[in-house]
Amino acid sequence: MSNERTEIGSLGEFGLIEHLTRNIELQQASSIVGVGDDAAVIDHFGKQTVITTDLLLEGVHFDLMYTPLKHLGYKAVVVNLSDIYAMNATPTQLVVSIGISNRFSVEAVSELYEGIYAACEKYGVDLVGGDTSSSQKGLVLSLTAIGEVTPDTFVKRSTAKKGDLLCVSGDLGAAYIGLLFLEREKKIFLESPKVQPDLEGEQYVIGRLLKPEARKDIVAFLNKSAIVPTAMMDISDGLSSEILHLCKQSQLGCVLYEEKIPIAEATRLAAFKFEIDPTACSLSGGEDYELLFTISANDYEKIVQSEQISVIGYMTEPEKGATLITKGGSTHPLIAQGWNHLKK
Amino acid sequence: MSNERTEIGSLGEFGLIEHLTRNIELQQASSIVGVGDDAAVIDHFGKQTVITTDLLLEGVHFDLMYTPLKHLGYKAVVVNLSDIYAMNATPTQLVVSIGISNRFSVEAVSELYEGIYAACEKYGVDLVGGDTSSSQKGLVLSLTAIGEVTPDTFVKRSTAKKGDLLCVSGDLGAAYIGLLFLEREKKIFLESPKVQPDLEGEQYVIGRLLKPEARKDIVAFLNKSAIVPTAMMDISDGLSSEILHLCKQSQLGCVLYEEKIPIAEATRLAAFKFEIDPTACSLSGGEDYELLFTISANDYEKIVQSEQISVIGYMTEPEKGATLITKGGSTHPLIAQGWNHLKK
Repeated sequence: MSNERTEIGSLGEFGLIEHLTRNIELQQASSIVGVGDDAAVIDHFGKQTVITTDLLLEGVHFDLMYTPLKHLGYKAVVVNLSDIYAMNATPTQLVVSIGISNRFSVEAVSELYEGIYAACEKYGVDLVGGDTSSSQKGLVLSLTAIGEVTPDTFVKRSTAKKGDLLCVSGDLGAAYIGLLFLEREKKIFLESPKVQPDLEGEQYVIGRLLKPEARKDIVAFLNKSAIVPTAMMDISDGLSSEILHLCKQSQLGCVLYEEKIPIAEATRLAAFKFEIDPTACSLSGGEDYELLFTISANDYEKIVQSEQISVIGYMTEPEKGATLITKGGSTHPLIAQGWNHLKK
Repeated sequence: MSNERTEIGSLGEFGLIEHLTRNIELQQASSIVGVGDDAAVIDHFGKQTVITTDLLLEGVHFDLMYTPLKHLGYKAVVVNLSDIYAMNATPTQLVVSIGISNRFSVEAVSELYEGIYAACEKYGVDLVGGDTSSSQKGLVLSLTAIGEVTPDTFVKRSTAKKGDLLCVSGDLGAAYIGLLFLEREKKIFLESPKVQPDLEGEQYVIGRLLKPEARKDIVAFLNKSAIVPTAMMDISDGLSSEILHLCKQSQLGCVLYEEKIPIAEATRLAAFKFEIDPTACSLSGGEDYELLFTISANDYEKIVQSEQISVIGYMTEPEKGATLITKGGSTHPLIAQGWNHLKK
């Protein structure tokens, strides 16, 4: 962050919006009217429009003590785009609302937007609107992402079939361990502000928490390989919670093999430092933003072409429920222990 | 509000979402996938998609001491739809995110949604998605409305022409006076909780604040009368601020006649009780959600057919600036004194 501090009041609401949006260049042919009117206008030219929204509240979804504003902006975009990709669609536009207290300077808000714009550029998405407001306390971020899909090629959660293979992209559990590290260092810092943070060697897990990416590449691979997933969703709350959603909405059961769950070596080592089970982190940790999907067993040969995709189980009749088969061969019902903010 | 109190924690996040969305029936043929997946899917069948978003924060945009939750839900939808109508478009879908603290019961949140659904039904809009989160303090509401418009018939703010007539729908200033009454009664109540509120006879101004409507009828009238406004926007911040936006974005000046500004008799009487100028309320009050638009002078005969539309001035070359001609005939530069939340 720069050392300058310009008060937001000195620009006013409209001045702030002008400042934040002055360099926008629309990239998408579908962005007909962007920032600056009552509403944005989009023309997807015969394609269907996909829309998703996320609300991010300081103290609930992020802690600014260890989250750089630029990373926060980037991540806020990515978590929304992840939902668009999870529909087998391509994100095209974004609207962003922020609520800020006078604790934030123009420079701080600009940093947040730098992250937002960096993600927009990486994923080819146009910022076309939003709302700016003061808040009494805490930073409020609300993003709505728009995407497009060739008519009726979107993929829902409810359409998996019995016998389909259960697949997941990338690796799981890292973001949760990253959070544990940052929470630990925050606690140490609050007790002894002079102690330097010790995050040596934990770049992978911390990076997964602070700067996740959406799996555009997986959707592109599936498309290129002519694999149409029978059902798909993204993993934000932890693998077990998401699998249970998929089972419930598709009215099926499933078998999940613990040994097939992809966990990075860095995640495994980091979990051991906290004396926790890496599998538990994958099942319940959350914030992975990987894709969970089912494919027809006929597509098995095609799917194994990607090192970024793991087959972790298969779908069964609903009566069998959702079952985890451990490395030791024992069988447990799969239960959701994802982050349930509302129960806290 | 009912006297029952069910804790949100007893339902959990997903239980709450199910509870709130269990009775949704999609009305729009364009709503392909609604609540319950990673994203909603919309097909506007060759029309263009219009999108707008609003963030509403407790303590900044509303005060629950005098705002019933059902009214708040209704109004939150209406202010968004107003932006869609202001583009000359028809609203079709809505996504709603809420952040709630444990201060709110399931019954309270249900009341908020009753208002949201009432507005959706009235305006023929489908709720197709959203996000639910806990907040540490205060209610957070973020709504994004989607609409459709026949390709390239949307109306922007930047396309008024010199000589165009400046028009406004309905009447102005009432919501601001309504707010003054409610703030006064709140103050009295806080000082002497036993005093009954004295809002007798002020239903009009209070109704305009608590339960505004979006001017669907005006857009329908313009359409039916084959009047295409040359520029249009809705009035949320006060007439003067909005006229200045329109002038700036169209690179024009304007003349506004004080005597032509439509003010309801109830508003005028109420303003006098506070010893304030009704015109000042109209110019700077805000939250009217009327439409401000310009039309070609050729459409004058058509526009006067509607009692709901007033011609209040005309557009000039930019060098003349934006000018108010008072009832006494004197000339003043028009200045914006709208609610600037960020300057507080």
